[in-house]
Order: sequence, then structure tokens, then C-alpha cells
Amino acid sequence: MHDEFAKIEWLKTRFDLGGDAKKVVVGIGDDAAVIDFGNRPTIITVDTQVEDVHFQRGLISYRDLGYRSMVAAVSDVWAMAAMPSASVVALTLPSNLPDEEFRELIEGVAEAARQTGARVVGGNLSRGASLSVTTTVFGLPIAESVTRHGALPGDSVYVTGTLGSAALGLAVLQTGSLDLAHAASFVERWRRPPTHGRAARALAALATAAVDVSDGCLQDLQHVCTASGVGATLHADAIPTAPGYQTTCKALDIDPVVLALTGGEDYELMFTAAESSEASALGTKIGEIIEGAGVRVVDATGQAIDLDQTGFRHFS
Amino acid sequence: MHDEFAKIEWLKTRFDLGGDAKKVVVGIGDDAAVIDFGNRPTIITVDTQVEDVHFQRGLISYRDLGYRSMVAAVSDVWAMAAMPSASVVALTLPSNLPDEEFRELIEGVAEAARQTGARVVGGNLSRGASLSVTTTVFGLPIAESVTRHGALPGDSVYVTGTLGSAALGLAVLQTGSLDLAHAASFVERWRRPPTHGRAARALAALATAAVDVSDGCLQDLQHVCTASGVGATLHADAIPTAPGYQTTCKALDIDPVVLALTGGEDYELMFTAAESSEASALGTKIGEIIEGAGVRVVDATGQAIDLDQTGFRHFS
Repeated sequence: MHDEFAKIEWLKTRFDLGGDAKKVVVGIGDDAAVIDFGNRPTIITVDTQVEDVHFQRGLISYRDLGYRSMVAAVSDVWAMAAMPSASVVALTLPSNLPDEEFRELIEGVAEAARQTGARVVGGNLSRGASLSVTTTVFGLPIAESVTRHGALPGDSVYVTGTLGSAALGLAVLQTGSLDLAHAASFVERWRRPPTHGRAARALAALATAAVDVSDGCLQDLQHVCTASGVGATLHADAIPTAPGYQTTCKALDIDPVVLALTGGEDYELMFTAAESSEASALGTKIGEIIEGAGVRVVDATGQAIDLDQTGFRHFS
Repeated sequence: MHDEFAKIEWLKTRFDLGGDAKKVVVGIGDDAAVIDFGNRPTIITVDTQVEDVHFQRGLISYRDLGYRSMVAAVSDVWAMAAMPSASVVALTLPSNLPDEEFRELIEGVAEAARQTGARVVGGNLSRGASLSVTTTVFGLPIAESVTRHGALPGDSVYVTGTLGSAALGLAVLQTGSLDLAHAASFVERWRRPPTHGRAARALAALATAAVDVSDGCLQDLQHVCTASGVGATLHADAIPTAPGYQTTCKALDIDPVVLALTGGEDYELMFTAAESSEASALGTKIGEIIEGAGVRVVDATGQAIDLDQTGFRHFS
């Protein structure tokens, strides 16, 4: 069970919701839970950013870390086609953290809270050997919440923005390659994930299933397929990437296709929907949902691509 | 600002709630936040238990750690005179944690979730150098939520159960004194905090202010006084303690009064109310609210007691 997803499957069996199950509209295993407190469904999600696992203090400013922690958590709310409305933030801080850096961290959280609408209403401060930020976000569905369960054979698969940019930004930092032409834009993309309030509203109107791309699009699409009981074909040549992506990958000796499919931390929204101009306006079509199971990645000629890597698993 | 409470005061100024302030019934600085999602107020609170800060792995089983983390978080909901209804749990786990211990941890969380009603509806798993459990709990007020702000001069101060027992249990473990006559009961009291669903219902009917005793009753009463703009007299000789408390303190060379006032982690409920038989049935009267500011501790003769220690501050 040394695998995040195996642990989550087991966890589902352990938290028996009993007679209250009806109030839990969506439980463990989706981007977020949906609870009906007897009035209106509320979206709840939690995300933790841990030093030396999700970030290294030398690679990101405290302000960006605070900003990033909040947006990464809110991302799961948008992926349910919901709007964030409140949050609580639990910080674990090394005892030698200077006040100035604590303040910068909080300013970053506050900036993201303002931009996303996830007002910080409470939290917790603890001492601890390593810095971590655990953000719980609450939201309200725009219409019906969109889960990972609704993808249908015949749907197209879309993704907002570009993929691989965040992972490439991290690679730039880790290799000290900031002198490359487009390096700064990729670094910025890793430090400051995109906000998707407008896309979330559009999802509510057209998506059959949605997920945020945090583990790499291949793995996240696999989650959607498993939850929906379908398979998918993913067109590697259709994956949208940012200007300078290919040349920067080449300079760093990184496979651009593998990185775009498995890189993780993009925090774009991937969704399934009947093909339409509205869906195409929101994202790039990268595949199709088919009957069966599993995700098959194909190249421009329709040949299957075998990828060794399948993204970032916390417990692999 | 190297002090938890100074940080919280500053945080209040940083998270401007703007035009949405009306929806936030109670914000940063109380036991929990109260949010009105447009239908019914929802209580939200978050608590983190960090290895080597809140617990040492050698002193508590994984099952008890899971149980304790949940009850410690739910405690803040009860202290608002509310009933827990759901929770999300974010775990940071060392990569070498055996499956068996992960399972035990979860079984303890699940046991406490069943006992308290705080159904686990979601969560997050992260790797990290040290084990930590961050629990966010949601609840619904029984009637009006009871905050720290409502204490009035003339009210009496009450506390449920006994004080100092949890801190004494921890001292027993840290000194390896399990052979003492009542040692096991104090250890159990530290490992398994009390549940207060029934007391929370009673609080809703009679309390003017309430807080859970997590930092030591002296410090927690100080919080109530500050929030309510009042002072208090605390009668040291009236503090309820458990059978064997005095003799066990003596055997460990611990001042029983200081420990009961400042020990922390009791997770009893302290509340202010007009004196009544209903209040006396719920807790022991330990003091009175007066005009002014600050908490004055007096002995049986009414002489002020000067305490050097004022409980457990995370950042002191």
C-alpha cells in the first residue's frame, strides 16, 4: 500500500458514512467532497504543501509559496465547477522562521484569497521541524457540481491553458538555467498557478466530468476514466504547450512529450464534454472518451506511445 | 511576534473580509469560525498535531494518535455549542511509515469520527519528514453559537470534568512512572481526550461564553476575558482534579496547582454563565467574571497567587 492511490482506495472502505451517507453528495476520492448541511451543497477540499516535498525554500519566495498553496487548494473547487467562498489555513512553522518571512507567506495567502474569493476565516499555527501549509477551501457549486464520474463514451477531452509549463519551470530552477530565453516565464508559471474562476463557470454549463491537472494529465485522466468506468485516447501531438516550451525542453535535455503528459502541478482544468464550440473556446481538445478502461496515448499517426513515467505519486 | 497570540492578532488585520464580512459570523481568533453560506451558519475549525511538538511517537500508539487528533479538533466545535457533522483529514506521513501503523492511525481517526459524529468526507495524503495530522471539522450550531465574546460581569466561570489530568499523564509517560498507583488513568486521559456532545447541547442553553481548555485554563480564561472585555477571579482551591491527582503530582515533584491551571491539553469545556443549578450540573464553578481586565488567581483565603508559568504557548 506504499502508493497514494492504494491508500485512498482503502480509506474509502474505512470511513463508513452510515445513515448519513445521503448528506454526503460526493465523498472520498474526488477533487473535493460535497456535503449537504441540510440546506445547500457545500464543496470542501484540503491540500498540503510540505517543504522539501512540494517545494524547497530556496526555489520559491515566501510570498509565492503562500499564493501557490492557496491556488493549488482552490483549484480542486474550480474543478468541481464551483466557486470558492471561504478557507482555513493551518501553518506549521519552524521556530527559527523570521517574522518577515512569516509575514510574506501570509501576504501571499491573502493575495490569493482576494483573487480567488476564498476568504480566510480561520486557521491554526503550530511549530514543526519543516514548514508546511495545509489549506482547506469551501465552495458553492455554480449549478450541479461536476465530479470525475460523468465522462461518457463519445465525449471529447479538453484541457485549459498549457501543460508541462510548471514542471519545466521547476526544472529550470533545479538546474539553475534561468539564463535561457523563456526560462523566467516557466518559473513564474510554476510559482504562480493560474486562476480559473471563469473556466469553472463555463464547466458548470458543459462538462460531464472534470479534474484539475495536479499529478500530470495522463494520471489525472486515468482517475477520470476509473471513476467514470470508461477508457480514453490521448493525442500527444494535440497537447497544448507554451511558447518556447520545445526549445527550453531541448536545452535541458527533457523529453517534451513525457513532461507535458506527466509533469504535474500545472493546475489547469481537464474536462470531458460533448464536442462544441463552447468547449473549444474554453480549452484545447486533446482526446476522446471511449468504452473500455485505461488511457492510450497515441502519436500523430495514431501509433500507441509507451510511457515509462506516469507522473508524480507521493508514495511511489 | 514570536508568540502565537501576537501572530493571530496580526493575522486578523491581514485577512480583510471586505463586503463579505456579513457572511462571516465569527472570524479569526475564536475556537472556530462561523460562516453563513447563504442558508445556515456553519462552524469551521482546524487543528494540527505535529510529531515532536504535540506528541512523540514513542509515547502514544498510532490508534490513540488518530483518535486524539480528531477529538482535539472537534473540541473547538463543541466549545461553540455546536455539533460536529463532517471533517477532512490531511496527513503528512514519513515515507518509511509501515502500512500497519498507517492503518492504526486511520482506525483511530475513524473511531473518533464515529463517536463524535464528525464524519470524514475527504482529505489529503502527503509525504513529509515528520508525521502530522491536520483535521478540519465542520459543525452546525445547536441554537446560537457560543463564542468567547459574551462573558458578563457577575457570571460564574465553570469547567467540565477535571483539570491537569492530561498534563499529568504526559508527565507520567515522560518520566517513565507508570508504576505509580493512578498513573494509567492519567496516561489514558492524555491519550484519549473526553467527548462533549452532551455538554455542547447544554452550553447552547445556558452559556454566555465558552472555550475548550487546550492551552491551560488560566490562559484560556484570559482569552475569554480579552475577547469579552472583562476580568475574572479564579479560585485555585476550587479547580476540580481527578482521584490520585495530588499524590501523583507529589510523587513526580510537580506543583499540583500550577499544573491544573497551566497544564494544557485537557480538552474540557470552560464556560461562563449566570449561576444556576443547570450550570452546576454541567461543570464545577471555579471563578467569577468581574469588571476590568485580566485573570486574578486566589487561594482559599482570597490571597492572590502569583504564577510564573502561564501554560503552553507554541511560539514562546
